[in-house]
Amino acid sequence: MATSSSFSAYTVQGQMSSAEARKSLHYLFNISTSSCKQSIQCNAFSSHAYMKKMRLSSFGNQLKLGIAERSSQRKGVYCSAMDVDNSRASFSPGKKFQLDDVIEAQQFDRDTLSAIFEVARDMEKVEKNSPGSQILKGFLMATLFYEPSTRTRLSFESAMKRLGGEVLTTENAREFSSAAKGETLEDTIRTVEGYSDIIVMRHFESGAARRAAATAGIPVINAGDGPGQHPTQALLDVYTIEREVGKLDGIKLALVGDLANGRTVRSLAYLLSKYQGVKIYFVSPDVVKMKDDIKGYLTSKGVEWEESADLMEVASKCDVVYQTRIQRERFGERVDLYEEARGKYIVDKDVMNAMQKHAVVMHPLPRLDEITVGVDDDPRAAYFRQAKNGLYIRMALLKLLLVGW
Amino acid sequence: MATSSSFSAYTVQGQMSSAEARKSLHYLFNISTSSCKQSIQCNAFSSHAYMKKMRLSSFGNQLKLGIAERSSQRKGVYCSAMDVDNSRASFSPGKKFQLDDVIEAQQFDRDTLSAIFEVARDMEKVEKNSPGSQILKGFLMATLFYEPSTRTRLSFESAMKRLGGEVLTTENAREFSSAAKGETLEDTIRTVEGYSDIIVMRHFESGAARRAAATAGIPVINAGDGPGQHPTQALLDVYTIEREVGKLDGIKLALVGDLANGRTVRSLAYLLSKYQGVKIYFVSPDVVKMKDDIKGYLTSKGVEWEESADLMEVASKCDVVYQTRIQRERFGERVDLYEEARGKYIVDKDVMNAMQKHAVVMHPLPRLDEITVGVDDDPRAAYFRQAKNGLYIRMALLKLLLVGW
Amino acid sequence: MATSSSFSAYTVQGQMSSAEARKSLHYLFNISTSSCKQSIQCNAFSSHAYMKKMRLSSFGNQLKLGIAERSSQRKGVYCSAMDVDNSRASFSPGKKFQLDDVIEAQQFDRDTLSAIFEVARDMEKVEKNSPGSQILKGFLMATLFYEPSTRTRLSFESAMKRLGGEVLTTENAREFSSAAKGETLEDTIRTVEGYSDIIVMRHFESGAARRAAATAGIPVINAGDGPGQHPTQALLDVYTIEREVGKLDGIKLALVGDLANGRTVRSLAYLLSKYQGVKIYFVSPDVVKMKDDIKGYLTSKGVEWEESADLMEVASKCDVVYQTRIQRERFGERVDLYEEARGKYIVDKDVMNAMQKHAVVMHPLPRLDEITVGVDDDPRAAYFRQAKNGLYIRMALLKLLLVGW
Repeated sequence: MATSSSFSAYTVQGQMSSAEARKSLHYLFNISTSSCKQSIQCNAFSSHAYMKKMRLSSFGNQLKLGIAERSSQRKGVYCSAMDVDNSRASFSPGKKFQLDDVIEAQQFDRDTLSAIFEVARDMEKVEKNSPGSQILKGFLMATLFYEPSTRTRLSFESAMKRLGGEVLTTENAREFSSAAKGETLEDTIRTVEGYSDIIVMRHFESGAARRAAATAGIPVINAGDGPGQHPTQALLDVYTIEREVGKLDGIKLALVGDLANGRTVRSLAYLLSKYQGVKIYFVSPDVVKMKDDIKGYLTSKGVEWEESADLMEVASKCDVVYQTRIQRERFGERVDLYEEARGKYIVDKDVMNAMQKHAVVMHPLPRLDEITVGVDDDPRAAYFRQAKNGLYIRMALLKLLLVGW
Repeated sequence: MATSSSFSAYTVQGQMSSAEARKSLHYLFNISTSSCKQSIQCNAFSSHAYMKKMRLSSFGNQLKLGIAERSSQRKGVYCSAMDVDNSRASFSPGKKFQLDDVIEAQQFDRDTLSAIFEVARDMEKVEKNSPGSQILKGFLMATLFYEPSTRTRLSFESAMKRLGGEVLTTENAREFSSAAKGETLEDTIRTVEGYSDIIVMRHFESGAARRAAATAGIPVINAGDGPGQHPTQALLDVYTIEREVGKLDGIKLALVGDLANGRTVRSLAYLLSKYQGVKIYFVSPDVVKMKDDIKGYLTSKGVEWEESADLMEVASKCDVVYQTRIQRERFGERVDLYEEARGKYIVDKDVMNAMQKHAVVMHPLPRLDEITVGVDDDPRAAYFRQAKNGLYIRMALLKLLLVGW
Repeated sequence: MATSSSFSAYTVQGQMSSAEARKSLHYLFNISTSSCKQSIQCNAFSSHAYMKKMRLSSFGNQLKLGIAERSSQRKGVYCSAMDVDNSRASFSPGKKFQLDDVIEAQQFDRDTLSAIFEVARDMEKVEKNSPGSQILKGFLMATLFYEPSTRTRLSFESAMKRLGGEVLTTENAREFSSAAKGETLEDTIRTVEGYSDIIVMRHFESGAARRAAATAGIPVINAGDGPGQHPTQALLDVYTIEREVGKLDGIKLALVGDLANGRTVRSLAYLLSKYQGVKIYFVSPDVVKMKDDIKGYLTSKGVEWEESADLMEVASKCDVVYQTRIQRERFGERVDLYEEARGKYIVDKDVMNAMQKHAVVMHPLPRLDEITVGVDDDPRAAYFRQAKNGLYIRMALLKLLLVGW
């Protein structure tokens, strides 16, 4: 969703993040343009610094605002699982920034994260004390899932409903664009945006969320697009570290398990590079080691990192042990390699005993046996609280995108 | 849903379209009948002129009202994709008519359409200005889909929620009546009507909606039954023409593409015959030409029509170019014929250039490439607005069926 | 959900059944414990007499309450389709009992049933007269269905929405615990309880609901777990008998059809043993006769029963004829045996003629032809009213579990 235009920047910018504001915008344009058919092309530079193409057309006494990202100069950039270029989020000190879409972890800088986390903490209070909150009353969220992900979907839908909003659900969105019918994602988005105020989309193709956001006149949240991005997971991970440890600067973190394929750990490493004095330990079987792009990026950002094969020793030094699941599907027919990899670094009571009193264990879930069930009772087992934090982060994002600060 | 009975006609007729009224009816009968078990059979002539069989039975201190359409004299009539007999909707001048179910395009006459469109326009205002509308607060809609149709389902569910109503969703309603379990549609309806206030049903069998309406004591809306009817699509098409062109009498319309199989274009041709001075052009590959029944019907109603192979020439004369998708599945293994047919009449920028300034392009969606993406930016491309109008029409119908005028 | 603890019994017991109360509990503990990390293990004896293990842990300024049933002493007891040991529900005369979870028919004693039925009757009034009821406003129910059961799901979701509550739906909950990902049911529950206030679970494994309840800190309702239990069906059956016949003591009931495999008839026989002077007739083909465990249990409880092959004669003596569907899938390739069995005892107009004026026919639905369609018009055909009663029972249970009496 684009939020500003070159000819009515002030008014629009102040209001554009809510459905209400979209309507104001409509009215505004109704006043300032004639009612004959016309098409105005203009370029706008939105507050999170994407180039957008805005198309404004009037017909009869109605006006349409179409927005398409001018993405030609970025072509090919968004194909890998985790690009490590600079944050593109602009933050004006002294002012609240404008959040239009949530597409990728890279769009958030430190100040943006901090501001979102503040709202998330408010959301904890709303969830606990205001069961009938009406903050998003009258707003409609469409969960457009091209592949099922019950956990993520329920988390978003709970967030919306906890704030008094309503939900349209589909888990078979592929039907929209089935090979047989052949509709483009863009056409689907243009239809669905007519039925809702915000779209939460899960897709099997990397870059799909960006395409959807470029098309939609309403906010889009990426709930995972293939091997690409899952930005709300990245946000809840960082939020959980801050909630559990009490700080982000100077944090010592172990990333354990499948570091080659997990977009989670890659995003997390990327986001932590925005903080001071961070130290990251990579503990993984050889076949699924952290890739060089992230290592190089961390180095370029002055983040200390080292690889280790000794989980016990690392655990004793860290504030956070972030365990991940070894994904069998990555090993094809080499079941032997998989079995060897998955059994190598298990978080069990011995590891807990090695850990400091204030340190915590995190995991993006679902887990198999890479954390033993016996650990669950330990108050330092933070993974279910981490899942719950996903609710608060999503509540915060929905609020920010729909009604602003 | 039947709305009147021979023994308490006045009271019932005035109130029966709302769930509230159903309750009034219950109480009314509670007063006027004894509490012993009895069964009363009576014939009633409902306001939209279907013959119904009403069954009233009391047991204990409760009363049940069962309604079944007396359909014997119509048997076999409703099997084809689009019957072209007369409208069966009765409209009493000076009074608002009663809408009980929405089963087929033929049930609407010109006055009914006009009245519904008036409400739909109100709904545009509700959607834009009253995000927290409570018009249908407390009402529960069951979307009983025997085959998935995400687009149609989301449109209905959005309509219900935009008006403050609630939704029960199922996209696997076939499970209800699976071969293994073998439940009849009628039994399913009798169960679901106990859980909801209105049923929106999609079914794979022509005539299923009529059967459901004959069984249900609550309103039923047909959201498409196999090759049969999809009346809300027909309504939104006519509504869009009126909104975009500003009139229906004297309209010049081109129906392009698959005219043999599309229920959409058949319903549209049928409904337009209710207006004065309409001219329809059929532009289609030979293999999917408009069938003779519709042509004959148009002629009998004094509607001018002609077939043409020259899309450019037709486009230059029309108010509306209604493009449709050529459906591959109709061609079986003759992919060559399909490819030839689908490439024949494309709406592109050249066609747009030939069209008049006030004319619009419509399409029921989804589209493939029968309208090129380059056309989307043209303000005369009305197909996404047309999809949005589906929301307003469905809001209007839900309001009319549940709370009346 | 556990509701009491040894160190703050009074406060907790009075409030623990509502989501609100859970929050009170949190605050209570916040006051009484320090904010350092600690873990407290304590045993509590909950009001429905399950031993629970409560785990209370604090971290930062938050507290977690984890509860796990101590089930070791019961291991292996809950594997059969219908255990016939004593009720475990305790009811304190003069006080309303506490309902924590709904797991199995056996947990209800006569007083509990009576109290629930009283609330269900209130719910009939709410549904009829208060379309916008807000009794459960702000509460969120998760329908966690590991196998689809549209009828049961819609009934629960309607119940929740009729009371102003909200719903999170999933019918593909298996994805949570797919073999590929391998998450345990317990982990799934710990995640979902973070998103909702009550879980309604359908599962393919006997005992799954008990495991879920032992894990969850919020109430769990069993909506059927494999061949195990379907307690809300059992409750609505007994409720329907009372509503239709006006009494439960002294009732004469025929159980007809598949008595070997149907958990419905087994549960019903079990529950009726709690009433005085009950007489049960078993009428079934030889291949699907009632099993000895239930017969023995009835005898031990002083319930008269007899087997009969003469449906007409039995029907003439009973208050209730409870017909069931013969399940084809039980007969494998012996289609001949299935055909013989299913055609043997049909409830048709002749059976209705033999029945007394006040007697009724019940059926858990769906039906095939074991009750002929011609019977539907008879006011004594109670099966659709029975389905509707499922709504009232579920409304009552949701209210009791979430906000108490």
